[in-house]
Amino acid sequence: MIIQKIHTISMIGAGNIADHLARWFQSRGYVIESVWSRNFSNAQQLADRIKANAVKYLEELSKTSDLYLVCVSDDALIDVIGKLSESGLKNKLLAHTSGSTPIDIFGKSFNNFGCVYPLQTFTKGKPLNSEDIPIFISGNNDFTIQLLGNLANDLSPKCFVISDEQRMNIHLAAVFACNFTNHLYCISQNLLTESKVSFVLMHPLIRETFQKAIENNPCEVQTGPAKRNDRSIIRKHLDLLDEKRNLKEIYQLLSESILKQDEI
Amino acid sequence: MIIQKIHTISMIGAGNIADHLARWFQSRGYVIESVWSRNFSNAQQLADRIKANAVKYLEELSKTSDLYLVCVSDDALIDVIGKLSESGLKNKLLAHTSGSTPIDIFGKSFNNFGCVYPLQTFTKGKPLNSEDIPIFISGNNDFTIQLLGNLANDLSPKCFVISDEQRMNIHLAAVFACNFTNHLYCISQNLLTESKVSFVLMHPLIRETFQKAIENNPCEVQTGPAKRNDRSIIRKHLDLLDEKRNLKEIYQLLSESILKQDEI
Repeated sequence: MIIQKIHTISMIGAGNIADHLARWFQSRGYVIESVWSRNFSNAQQLADRIKANAVKYLEELSKTSDLYLVCVSDDALIDVIGKLSESGLKNKLLAHTSGSTPIDIFGKSFNNFGCVYPLQTFTKGKPLNSEDIPIFISGNNDFTIQLLGNLANDLSPKCFVISDEQRMNIHLAAVFACNFTNHLYCISQNLLTESKVSFVLMHPLIRETFQKAIENNPCEVQTGPAKRNDRSIIRKHLDLLDEKRNLKEIYQLLSESILKQDEI
Repeated sequence: MIIQKIHTISMIGAGNIADHLARWFQSRGYVIESVWSRNFSNAQQLADRIKANAVKYLEELSKTSDLYLVCVSDDALIDVIGKLSESGLKNKLLAHTSGSTPIDIFGKSFNNFGCVYPLQTFTKGKPLNSEDIPIFISGNNDFTIQLLGNLANDLSPKCFVISDEQRMNIHLAAVFACNFTNHLYCISQNLLTESKVSFVLMHPLIRETFQKAIENNPCEVQTGPAKRNDRSIIRKHLDLLDEKRNLKEIYQLLSESILKQDEI
């Protein structure tokens, strides 16, 4: 590998993350050469949008790309990387975008590999506000780390080199702060709907909760019945949830967890 | 009761909510006459800040207030209302601010009573952005509802008359969307700290999660391993939490709940 800087990229995968990343790369002057997807029409759609070349088989990927970025679901990674190892890319630079997969999944089939992990939730059709998205990179050698680091630096002012273990913990923390939080919003909305109240009325409360959490240490601004150890309210709420066993368990577990937090 | 509109208010309780509400009332031209708290020095501090009269005993509360607003913790409500019933306020208008207490806690000791429930989390020392906070009111008769409704209308453009049952469900929904959400932020922060990563790097992600939830139906924009039913990631995350039984349980329960959500 004799490149000093990445200029051209091929995308392996054409889903939500591939779509957002490809546009992000283009906005910073990178050239997307080819796009592959298990579903060819997806590859074609993405390639059309970004004026790249859609390919049906991995062997048809451009041979001249400086980076081959694997943006497929974690479940598909092993399979896709296995097939890539037969595509003549042994000395090329490859990276995946998975939060919870070690980079040595590229194993002994490749000489230069790593990960580019942007910490964000990507919504189909919603343009990225990419200004302050942190990008975490990993690589199997100094050269790889430098190339991916330069790429990440072009995308965001917040780039960090991390270990597999750190990335996995960051992904786990993101599941709590993003995916689970959104699920609680969903539960809240369902409870309100039952009471014929619009979730829109909850917006100022959840905005304030978010604002407080970013202006402070969230652990220190906890409020609510569990924080006050207000047993009579907790009991009333559990009674209300008597016929919703799932929500009752979540209420109980999170309330106990808030109580325990103060014991630590 | 012959008043047509509330002009003067006495505050029973001098905590966080009393403090925020008293300033809110004043900003709209209401006069706070007297303030009582179980802890007299708290009453004095609040009274000093809002130029009202602090009283040591409930019997000393101004007899001329148009509204006596009880802002004490739910645990203290029964006791305080019991004592108030001996304070010569039988024909006055009283209201509490509790999300989960029926208004008939004022029972047979009073003729006119209700509830003023602002849906917000109040932070000590942090001024209220009161523009769009919804206020839910209840009253035991039309006259009470009208008086409290006029008051609420002066505070916010979003006022609603609701039943005890609706208020309790709104409070429950708020616990999920606000208190539990904040606790998840706290858990996330703790996990990041263990990996020597600052929670500040999580801000763009949680901002995007909040934005998506208010711009859409949160149930419809769910993302993450559980939503994708990505069992290999879920298993890895549970392994990571092996020595944190509490977090492991929360992870498991919320992931199952997200999975179930799609089955409904």
